[in-house]
Amino acid sequence: MTTYKDATVEEINTVMENSWLAFEACKKFSLKQRAGFMHAIADALDTRSETLVATAMKETHLPKDRLEGELTRTLFQLNSYANAAREGSWLEARIDTAIPDHTPAKPDLRKMLVPLGPVVVFGSSNFPFAYSTAGGDTACALAAGCPVVVKAHPAHAETSEMVAAIITETARKAGMPEKIFQHVHGAGFAVGEALVMHPRTKAVGFTGSFSGGKALFDRAAQRREPIPVFAEMGSVNPVYLLPEKLKESPETIAEMYAQSVTLSVGQFCTNPGLIIGMDNEYLQKFIRVLGREIEQIAPATMLHPGIAKAYAANRSLALQQEEVSTVAAATQEPLENQGVPTIASATGEAFLKNPVLHKEVFGPFSLVVRCRDMDEMTAIAAGMEGQLTGTLMGTEADMLKNNKLVEAVKNTCGRIIVNGVPTGVEVCLSMQHGGPFPATTDPRFTSVGADGIKRFARPVCFQNWPNTLLPDELKDANPLGIWRTVNDDLTKEGTRIASDL
Amino acid sequence: MTTYKDATVEEINTVMENSWLAFEACKKFSLKQRAGFMHAIADALDTRSETLVATAMKETHLPKDRLEGELTRTLFQLNSYANAAREGSWLEARIDTAIPDHTPAKPDLRKMLVPLGPVVVFGSSNFPFAYSTAGGDTACALAAGCPVVVKAHPAHAETSEMVAAIITETARKAGMPEKIFQHVHGAGFAVGEALVMHPRTKAVGFTGSFSGGKALFDRAAQRREPIPVFAEMGSVNPVYLLPEKLKESPETIAEMYAQSVTLSVGQFCTNPGLIIGMDNEYLQKFIRVLGREIEQIAPATMLHPGIAKAYAANRSLALQQEEVSTVAAATQEPLENQGVPTIASATGEAFLKNPVLHKEVFGPFSLVVRCRDMDEMTAIAAGMEGQLTGTLMGTEADMLKNNKLVEAVKNTCGRIIVNGVPTGVEVCLSMQHGGPFPATTDPRFTSVGADGIKRFARPVCFQNWPNTLLPDELKDANPLGIWRTVNDDLTKEGTRIASDL
Repeated sequence: MTTYKDATVEEINTVMENSWLAFEACKKFSLKQRAGFMHAIADALDTRSETLVATAMKETHLPKDRLEGELTRTLFQLNSYANAAREGSWLEARIDTAIPDHTPAKPDLRKMLVPLGPVVVFGSSNFPFAYSTAGGDTACALAAGCPVVVKAHPAHAETSEMVAAIITETARKAGMPEKIFQHVHGAGFAVGEALVMHPRTKAVGFTGSFSGGKALFDRAAQRREPIPVFAEMGSVNPVYLLPEKLKESPETIAEMYAQSVTLSVGQFCTNPGLIIGMDNEYLQKFIRVLGREIEQIAPATMLHPGIAKAYAANRSLALQQEEVSTVAAATQEPLENQGVPTIASATGEAFLKNPVLHKEVFGPFSLVVRCRDMDEMTAIAAGMEGQLTGTLMGTEADMLKNNKLVEAVKNTCGRIIVNGVPTGVEVCLSMQHGGPFPATTDPRFTSVGADGIKRFARPVCFQNWPNTLLPDELKDANPLGIWRTVNDDLTKEGTRIASDL
Repeated sequence: MTTYKDATVEEINTVMENSWLAFEACKKFSLKQRAGFMHAIADALDTRSETLVATAMKETHLPKDRLEGELTRTLFQLNSYANAAREGSWLEARIDTAIPDHTPAKPDLRKMLVPLGPVVVFGSSNFPFAYSTAGGDTACALAAGCPVVVKAHPAHAETSEMVAAIITETARKAGMPEKIFQHVHGAGFAVGEALVMHPRTKAVGFTGSFSGGKALFDRAAQRREPIPVFAEMGSVNPVYLLPEKLKESPETIAEMYAQSVTLSVGQFCTNPGLIIGMDNEYLQKFIRVLGREIEQIAPATMLHPGIAKAYAANRSLALQQEEVSTVAAATQEPLENQGVPTIASATGEAFLKNPVLHKEVFGPFSLVVRCRDMDEMTAIAAGMEGQLTGTLMGTEADMLKNNKLVEAVKNTCGRIIVNGVPTGVEVCLSMQHGGPFPATTDPRFTSVGADGIKRFARPVCFQNWPNTLLPDELKDANPLGIWRTVNDDLTKEGTRIASDL
């Protein structure tokens, strides 16, 4: 594996100062040019897909088809966020025209989102393409008009280096400021910390562990000028099995979940790590079938030795807890760095009193919680920490009857799935990939879907500006043809000037 | 002056637990009912306007017409944010319908903003109505669907108590959960801190001093579950006099600014505390006229003795700085607790090297900075801390010629006024009352205008929900007739189900 030297403090300083200069230089580019650059990155990555996938396979042990799919997703993100950037709704353009004869005279006010400035992106270990160097955060920041500095994830630094070189080359060809995208290496925390603390850094995007994300969030809050950090820090993704639905199809649900729990060796932030049901014959049947399925799924190599080690340790810790029993584990012996698919079980009472059982075990592991009754299940839902997702396996009657539980799930997560699995995060405007802390550091934003652009932009109001000097997005004639709210009405029309009324 | 007992830790705990129960109880109310409640509060305040204004006059020393105007503004905020809540664009409703024959099958995804939960509001000293108990933050939180707990500002606790009683009575009459609004007193920091630290608190709105806002922001970031704090902490509001414009009309600009600097004894967060121009005969003329005008404006009583004392101290500190000269001060002798209108001046060089001169002097004070050349003026703009506003006094030619300065102003503020004054904050959707730190704690939000609602809401995605169980806002037929983005198109139409295509 190629190793890279950590960036020095001086190098980081140069990188961030150059990022600031690129920010200023980028202002002259239109939404269309911004989008064109993003499409060009997608095209360039596409032409090198074979080498990229091969390198990522070597570094991450993820299978070829998974990586090919992930690269396709990455291109789709770049292209679809580019289209969203150009379409312009995300700018939240608002115009209130002047009313000169009002007392006091109402001025002309126009508002739109502008880029925050240089954004530092920390990619994830488990998505070397889609949530790393040219991934969702980078695409959102570029769409917002921000230059990006990526700190390569050390687990796939070579892949990251290749992607970075492609983006830089594309920038040069597209006539963009070369430093619109920069790339640094850093195996420890020091480089990341220095990037977050640099005064030129104006926002941070992070996908990874709680400890890493929280540490960066804390540093950013302690800056002389605190800055927004969107850290997506994973989740246990509780699944609630409601009684009527469970009674209908315990086997089908178990088979579906055996797949979801072990997909990509359980290395998804939306992996269902907790399955909660009322203890009865149907739940017992569900557990039996789930166990039987899990036993037959082969252990597989995890992303890197550190993750495999952490999985083994966290799995052991969970299984060693009093009142936790092992339901099933893959029967095939694991090789080094492989994760063993495992299902454990505990009572609702044990779960409620033991915070260790609330923690994510990142890997192919799920804990089935057997509740005494629906009150206990509702209490568990109400006490749950913030989550990316919550899943309700339930009939309509189940959901109507257990409204308190449904509301508790809504209070604690960003996405609520009915009769499905949380794994599989569709890239579209309606997606919410976020949630209350500790799932993320700010529940008001998403890191998947074009709404993620708004993490990296802020409104600026232009009062009484001459029309010719306004950004095109806010000019009377609406030359870009974008949706704008004019005097409280959403329209693509140009403004009627107050004096024309 | 009536004094009130500080809330105890036990009382705060009860208040926040009740707020949480009210949050759950409020979920059943429609947007229309939410809006109706807000209109009812406005109506109820209106019928008691005489008593309210009289009480506020006694407590704040603000003149009657100013307070009447402020109360009118408060009612307008409640009514207009209620209308915005009901209109529903702020919900950012998005629908992506299912594509079952896609590989993998694309699920049905629908997203909208939901309330964060109990919001704690800290009102300002200088706006006893519009940015206090029933003020902008309360109106935004109620519009979002959040229950509110207000900590009364000790400088107008009696007014606050009256407003609170009116809201509580209105809630009862409207059939709203009584604890949708609660009110506590606390003269020191302890009560505010306990409110912000309580686990049931999900967001904070604050308008006031840097020290107060920053302390609450720090506490909130250190919680086990950090929560969003929007603190608006004031601003120096730099005004840039560009050469051609200044040459055209130094007297008119000076007269306009003498008024703006001293409006309401300078007690606005948008007060122009810094006026920056290139040193030449026109700037000298501007300074002479401004000084002459200021001398003739009578000192007036400030909001409370603490503010008057702080003004006197900060004014002295500024005037005592080496290379700062006093241009003019009101000639009339001040009475106790009155603020003396004052203009000081310094060179650009002195300003750049002395951070004391960058600090807000809250009151009728402004510092005129005389720059050597446009480069120095641009350097000052580029080095400016985050501001609520920046003002450009300039012709179109001035602005085109000084693009670097214009961009520097844009980088550092939330609203850029051309040829006007920063005082006077219109309540409308296009307003941005916010800005980079230290003007606020998050430049991505505003505390004036209906976009302020979004501070207190977060997106939730509903995946594969049965249509009947979805919130009305997301149902196929669009029963509320709101704007929604359906499969990337903004529309008020109902959805076409994928199976119908």
